[in-house]
Amino acid sequence: MNLGRKVPKLLSAFAAVMLCAVSVAVHAHAQDDPLPSWNDGPAKQSIIDFVKTTTDESNSRFVPPKERIAEFDQDGTLWVEHPVYTQILYCLDRVGALVKEKPELKDREPFKTVLSGDRAAIAQLPPRDLFEILLATQSGMTVEEFAADVKRWLAVAKDSRWNRPYTDLTYLPMQEVLNYLRANGYKTFIATGGSAGFVSVYSEQVYGIPPEQVAGTEQPLAYGYDKDGRPVLTKEPKFALENFGAGKIENFAMIYGRRPYAAFGNSSSDDQQMLEYVKAGTGARLSVVVMHDDATREYAYGPAQGLPDTKVGTLSQEMYDMAKKQGWTVISMKNDWKHIFAFEK
Amino acid sequence: MNLGRKVPKLLSAFAAVMLCAVSVAVHAHAQDDPLPSWNDGPAKQSIIDFVKTTTDESNSRFVPPKERIAEFDQDGTLWVEHPVYTQILYCLDRVGALVKEKPELKDREPFKTVLSGDRAAIAQLPPRDLFEILLATQSGMTVEEFAADVKRWLAVAKDSRWNRPYTDLTYLPMQEVLNYLRANGYKTFIATGGSAGFVSVYSEQVYGIPPEQVAGTEQPLAYGYDKDGRPVLTKEPKFALENFGAGKIENFAMIYGRRPYAAFGNSSSDDQQMLEYVKAGTGARLSVVVMHDDATREYAYGPAQGLPDTKVGTLSQEMYDMAKKQGWTVISMKNDWKHIFAFEK
Repeated sequence: MNLGRKVPKLLSAFAAVMLCAVSVAVHAHAQDDPLPSWNDGPAKQSIIDFVKTTTDESNSRFVPPKERIAEFDQDGTLWVEHPVYTQILYCLDRVGALVKEKPELKDREPFKTVLSGDRAAIAQLPPRDLFEILLATQSGMTVEEFAADVKRWLAVAKDSRWNRPYTDLTYLPMQEVLNYLRANGYKTFIATGGSAGFVSVYSEQVYGIPPEQVAGTEQPLAYGYDKDGRPVLTKEPKFALENFGAGKIENFAMIYGRRPYAAFGNSSSDDQQMLEYVKAGTGARLSVVVMHDDATREYAYGPAQGLPDTKVGTLSQEMYDMAKKQGWTVISMKNDWKHIFAFEK
Repeated sequence: MNLGRKVPKLLSAFAAVMLCAVSVAVHAHAQDDPLPSWNDGPAKQSIIDFVKTTTDESNSRFVPPKERIAEFDQDGTLWVEHPVYTQILYCLDRVGALVKEKPELKDREPFKTVLSGDRAAIAQLPPRDLFEILLATQSGMTVEEFAADVKRWLAVAKDSRWNRPYTDLTYLPMQEVLNYLRANGYKTFIATGGSAGFVSVYSEQVYGIPPEQVAGTEQPLAYGYDKDGRPVLTKEPKFALENFGAGKIENFAMIYGRRPYAAFGNSSSDDQQMLEYVKAGTGARLSVVVMHDDATREYAYGPAQGLPDTKVGTLSQEMYDMAKKQGWTVISMKNDWKHIFAFEK
């Protein structure tokens, strides 16, 4: 045995043990109130009960660490989606650059309306037109070029109401849920109706969720070579996977091979089947709906509360009734959240 | 402060620290030779050099832990693929049950040939027929029913040459590579031409790779309800994602949003673009080809070594030349692997 060689290993082992000790202590302290931005009430309690039940080995509904999977919708669940999805704003902003490359689009709808700058007309564009704009502005570039462009945009674009970067508009209480679940061995995933490649640009920094755990509506990638002969993957102007309606949970189960134990969403159009399917699993399952009922601090919309049925992320009466009947958790942003954004505190 | 409440926390903190200490010590020991089933040589050395380079913070090609992604083909790279892919054997075995449900298939090709039991004729079925059999035998059931059936089959099915369960036929040296990479912060993924739902049944137990890190040729899932009104996801008889040829890396990048730092494969038909793309990334990248040149301990096939061009997993001369030109690692099973299977030792 060569003692000289062993000493650095022992030192590094000692350092690792100390690091573990510090991490355990920090962890114990944070557990005192894992959700400090939440008011006490049934919503907060249901999340805490779920975590306690599924991580208690003596409980019959204990979930082994490897199976602890939680799935989150993004727009309207983790950050503001109203009045327009952030990614759509990015695509609209890109139309100018697109038309420079392809001038023939200038006089064609829906590009003509976007270029007119008429906000009311743009707001009226139907989903079909928005998809056309999305596919036109998000294709023909490599995955790296796309990510770099989104990154540049996010660094300068600001929300018109709060005058802040969009990444500031994430819900602090949901950030706490993400951290709380991860501190208890849950692996957290995003399943968005938007493009995974858009969300992945900031998901790690903003939510602590790495790209490989972000699923979205996906455009196929085409293998090819750039002018220097290097292999590249280029985004194609069509959809390979559509995370709309039941598609969100169909694709999640197909790609990740799991039924999550917990799911968080807000919209009847895209989250209903995901929440229903998760709740229908065996053992303890948590399905949570974020209800937008705070016109003062955020927005209030959705027919379930007799509020306007906006075009994005609406909570229908049918989904609300399903939530009540099946024992989902319904979050009232107004009543359950002490703070909505970190910058308000 | 309530000391009574703090004591259990301190005890659990102490237990966690001790667990860390033990794990660090075990880890330090295993590092003495991380690849004991490998003979010394350039293949083994290239893997060790890659890991040392990318985990050394003082190295300009250091890779942050979160970006440490390694991708493995399965058939022919992690376990035996010759003479027939294991999943195809499963599908062939299921034809009997399928015909009981759908007697009209009995006299239709390719089902008729499979039912004849004529091994030579079955071995001659073209890929088109094999896909038809795969889709027919792997659809119409829920994801849970499929997984349960694969599990039952794997528990009893045996390879004809070694008379062992297929899960025994994994390559011990590759198991060591998986463990070595993970011990150094790499997240390991499988990208198979087969069905992820098939591989996921054993990937966690056999390779330490959880279902959410297994990508494959995917059949879409259809949301619906069973006779008791419970929501179910049913496998459809078509492909949503095809992991063949360039499709393997196209789909990997689309789903996981990452270019791996290391990739391992063996076949020109399905791994060539994956290995080329990985190697073309910036910084230190490792692309590895498993060459089947050991007729005694496993099989020898592939024109690159002047061996027969079998229908599955062939290494072409073109891919071999590309490997040499671009600095990929080529593993000679005969020369680089001290042991091939754990049961041989």
